[in-house]
Amino acid sequence: MIKKSAYAVIVAGGSGTRMGTSVPKQFLEILGKPVLYYTIEAFLNCGVDCSIVLVVPAEHELLAKSIVAISSKPSSIQVIHGGATRFESMKNGLSFVPEDAIVWVHDAVRCLVDQSLILRCYDQAIELGSAIPAVAATDSIRVVEDNKHKVIDRNTIQLIQTPQTFKAAILKQACQQEFNPSFTDEATVVEASGKEVFLCKGSYDNIKITRPADLIIAEQILSQRLK
Amino acid sequence: MIKKSAYAVIVAGGSGTRMGTSVPKQFLEILGKPVLYYTIEAFLNCGVDCSIVLVVPAEHELLAKSIVAISSKPSSIQVIHGGATRFESMKNGLSFVPEDAIVWVHDAVRCLVDQSLILRCYDQAIELGSAIPAVAATDSIRVVEDNKHKVIDRNTIQLIQTPQTFKAAILKQACQQEFNPSFTDEATVVEASGKEVFLCKGSYDNIKITRPADLIIAEQILSQRLK
Repeated sequence: MIKKSAYAVIVAGGSGTRMGTSVPKQFLEILGKPVLYYTIEAFLNCGVDCSIVLVVPAEHELLAKSIVAISSKPSSIQVIHGGATRFESMKNGLSFVPEDAIVWVHDAVRCLVDQSLILRCYDQAIELGSAIPAVAATDSIRVVEDNKHKVIDRNTIQLIQTPQTFKAAILKQACQQEFNPSFTDEATVVEASGKEVFLCKGSYDNIKITRPADLIIAEQILSQRLK
Repeated sequence: MIKKSAYAVIVAGGSGTRMGTSVPKQFLEILGKPVLYYTIEAFLNCGVDCSIVLVVPAEHELLAKSIVAISSKPSSIQVIHGGATRFESMKNGLSFVPEDAIVWVHDAVRCLVDQSLILRCYDQAIELGSAIPAVAATDSIRVVEDNKHKVIDRNTIQLIQTPQTFKAAILKQACQQEFNPSFTDEATVVEASGKEVFLCKGSYDNIKITRPADLIIAEQILSQRLK
């Protein structure tokens, strides 16, 4: 397989309201370091040489830069400002990525992403053009429509994660579309442009830090990895 | 509201394969007591006087009885044997529940169920005949069919929990049906009998203990509650 240059666009947009804290979730600390630090390090140490474009709200630029400064390779990271929507933020980040690169678009608050998932996405995106990590649902699932609900086979349900990974040219072309509220992630943007996207095996550990209990899980998993 | 007698049918069937242990998950220990102990205590202390029917595989009868013995009200609990399927196990348990009672059917491995959820289900089942706790999905969701997948509005997706709660007469009548593989939980059994079931607000804390990380979360939440 021919290797390609690799960029991670890490989007840090959340307001942290579900956490009940005023600090956005990507800046909360685990084992003395912010969530975002672990996310950055996962890509810097993934085994593929890569650059990182860190997209943050303007008011958090200094905080983000202080995290970059303690990372293992500050020179590989640039910090830029986000837009009004996740789509705009991602698009801003993507403008710093060369056309022929592979790009991972990743939630800053998924700090447990690991090397094998990052590489699996990279390899599949080279081969198929995209890699959208997904895991099967473990609960029973119902679909609610028009105030009615019906059960749906949980084996048909996939919970979608990041890094959503693409040949940059594919995502760049898709981003030329006007924003549409149906653009809930990069996969939906690329599909709206008429291209198929391909799932790959995600990881149950690769959780989004959204609630206080998630910080506890993250701390345990990270401290086991650091042993 | 006229109060009704209340029975919890707690189904302990799992084999624990995802946990990577040979001990079934309901018998793993948290803070020195088995998962099942906390599940039992949640119902014994829910604020409604209730009886518990504990359904376990025959080979775990002694272990289950030893947990009953350390519970706060052993005389309210009977231990019976399960069947080949969850449906059979639940049906065996239900045969010990009077026709005019309210019955919670609960997964033994959901040991974080709390008083307010148990009472919410009880009250709604008295009023509407059923209460199926559910929480909204927080990830993007895709549906996979015929090797294709498409995104689905995550606001329409509800993750179903237990205790699934019913007027016992409704569930008993539904259980007269022949077993069907579509019977994935009690709600689907009752729906197959032609009756509507009603969702109620679940709790994000009310997780199933299925993976090692879940034990860590459970320990944290339980130790905070014990403070």
